Amino acid sequence: MIASPDRRPFDDVRHLVATLPFGDTSAANTARSRQAELTKPAGSLGRLEDIAVWLATWGGGRAIAVNRPLAAIFAGAHGVAARGVSAYPPAVNAQMLANFSQGGAAINQLCKTFDISLRVFDLAVDIPTGDICDGPAMSERDCAANMAFGMEALAGEPDLLCLGDMGIGNTTAAAAIYAALWGGGATTWVGAGTGVDADGLARKTNAVETALATHSGHLGDPLAVLARLGGREIAAIAGAILAARHQRVPVILDGYVTTAAAAVLHALRPDALDHCLAAHCSAEKAHANVLERLGLKPLLSLDMRLGEASGAALAVSIVRAAAALHSGMATFAEAGVSGCL
Amino acid sequence: MIASPDRRPFDDVRHLVATLPFGDTSAANTARSRQAELTKPAGSLGRLEDIAVWLATWGGGRAIAVNRPLAAIFAGAHGVAARGVSAYPPAVNAQMLANFSQGGAAINQLCKTFDISLRVFDLAVDIPTGDICDGPAMSERDCAANMAFGMEALAGEPDLLCLGDMGIGNTTAAAAIYAALWGGGATTWVGAGTGVDADGLARKTNAVETALATHSGHLGDPLAVLARLGGREIAAIAGAILAARHQRVPVILDGYVTTAAAAVLHALRPDALDHCLAAHCSAEKAHANVLERLGLKPLLSLDMRLGEASGAALAVSIVRAAAALHSGMATFAEAGVSGCL
Repeated sequence: MIASPDRRPFDDVRHLVATLPFGDTSAANTARSRQAELTKPAGSLGRLEDIAVWLATWGGGRAIAVNRPLAAIFAGAHGVAARGVSAYPPAVNAQMLANFSQGGAAINQLCKTFDISLRVFDLAVDIPTGDICDGPAMSERDCAANMAFGMEALAGEPDLLCLGDMGIGNTTAAAAIYAALWGGGATTWVGAGTGVDADGLARKTNAVETALATHSGHLGDPLAVLARLGGREIAAIAGAILAARHQRVPVILDGYVTTAAAAVLHALRPDALDHCLAAHCSAEKAHANVLERLGLKPLLSLDMRLGEASGAALAVSIVRAAAALHSGMATFAEAGVSGCL
Repeated sequence: MIASPDRRPFDDVRHLVATLPFGDTSAANTARSRQAELTKPAGSLGRLEDIAVWLATWGGGRAIAVNRPLAAIFAGAHGVAARGVSAYPPAVNAQMLANFSQGGAAINQLCKTFDISLRVFDLAVDIPTGDICDGPAMSERDCAANMAFGMEALAGEPDLLCLGDMGIGNTTAAAAIYAALWGGGATTWVGAGTGVDADGLARKTNAVETALATHSGHLGDPLAVLARLGGREIAAIAGAILAARHQRVPVILDGYVTTAAAAVLHALRPDALDHCLAAHCSAEKAHANVLERLGLKPLLSLDMRLGEASGAALAVSIVRAAAALHSGMATFAEAGVSGCL
């Protein structure tokens, strides 16, 4: 990303969005044909067959396999958290970063169980973004810089990228983004997050309403929505999704906050998420609605609402199974099994 | 199982059903308490928390872990298959047994991916059971013997048992069992199975109707239903479910045919399946209805309809993750993370 005084902050981002590569339809067709020859009734592996074809479509010509999955967690601090919109204090951000590095968090166990690499990106959790009720969370230049930072998630050349988030207050930011992109008012999008009580929920709803009023008239551009109402981790995730597309790495999206980053890209270009799977439908009230609007059908629905890429890491097991089935099963001819009558 | 001339065939089975052990509520309470102390918002791991508690309840005092999972596939041949109720010929039974032993089937890839042991039980696939349209599939004595054989699945002392089936024609038998236990007529329960066409579906529906008429007046006892309308693999699975309960091994049930065995036990005693999880809701039309009647909430819903324990093996990854999270995560105190405000 090149910054120069005469260029606008999002020029590079818009260029990346405009030049998204398409999927490999030839590889997809080859994969679909192989599925029909494997020793099982046609279609009987259901979505696992679709996932194998999806890996072929977006995997850049690599063998259909999951050998180097990476879970990337982006952590940010939110000015709006000072308004009591979360069940937990902002101090938890730094404490959870320590927990991640000591291996005590949920995502550590999931990465260990499923042999997934883990990288945690600290997007300055000691310095909260601006309170979205008062003004922009970030300048457009800061937002673009955080998007560029998110692209670092691809540095280790993963063959499957799980994207997740951590940040006290970030379901408030996500709800504000959805409301700005899609309307419907704060109550449509605000939910219990980490588990706020009724008073907290009222403060959260009020914060989103206030933020929408504060930024009224400046929310026509999805990238402006991201900068004004989002957070550093949400911007970074949007950057990672874009970079993954350009580098031919399939993506698994975690829950409600992560899909807010995806929603910004989807608003810029409806096919921007074709290389992404939704890991799960979370317990957060509006997530099912979000996924439907994005055209994403979740793989899992286990009432999870933890964030930190936990749903995405769990979904790696499904994607890995799909790849193993596709690549490892015998064909009818190889196994000498009779086909359909 | 002791057979003697003056005893009735199902005496031993009825004794096992009458003496089912209850769950360990003390271990369950301990597990539930630990869940509340782990570094995550209370309840935020959703069903994964419930699964950890379920493992504590039914795991016989072992540590909460999945170290020795076993997938057991029971294979049987069905006389009714000669009526053209399947998209595949009965010869596929023996061919698929060979495919299992050569490692080419779907279940082989899943077991390899998730480090699950695999045992395949050939219940005489070269000798079909009786055609249920003409008479009983098995005598009650044969049925009891197959149930006893199914108990062999526990021999290797697994700590988690996945139960699945293979047998051309067995969704017809399963549909007949559901119809006999719950009414509703053949059309309520008959679906496309491996993928029959419209003519095949008509033959299948007709076969179930004919079978219900043939056995009318003899279907009051769920074990009689199993013997008359089931198959050897379905009987064996019922035996395995019972044995697992007595040996304190939690069970994951595969799809539409496997849950027919579970339904027989449930009809004998509604709490007989408390140590069982439903792996998935399959694409077979009536499976969602079946699971609801059994009070089982499926873990996965991926439009699979393959059988051979494939859904159950996939669900092992979820159960293993639940155990790893429960046992490996740090508590708030250990990690120095602030609790709820």
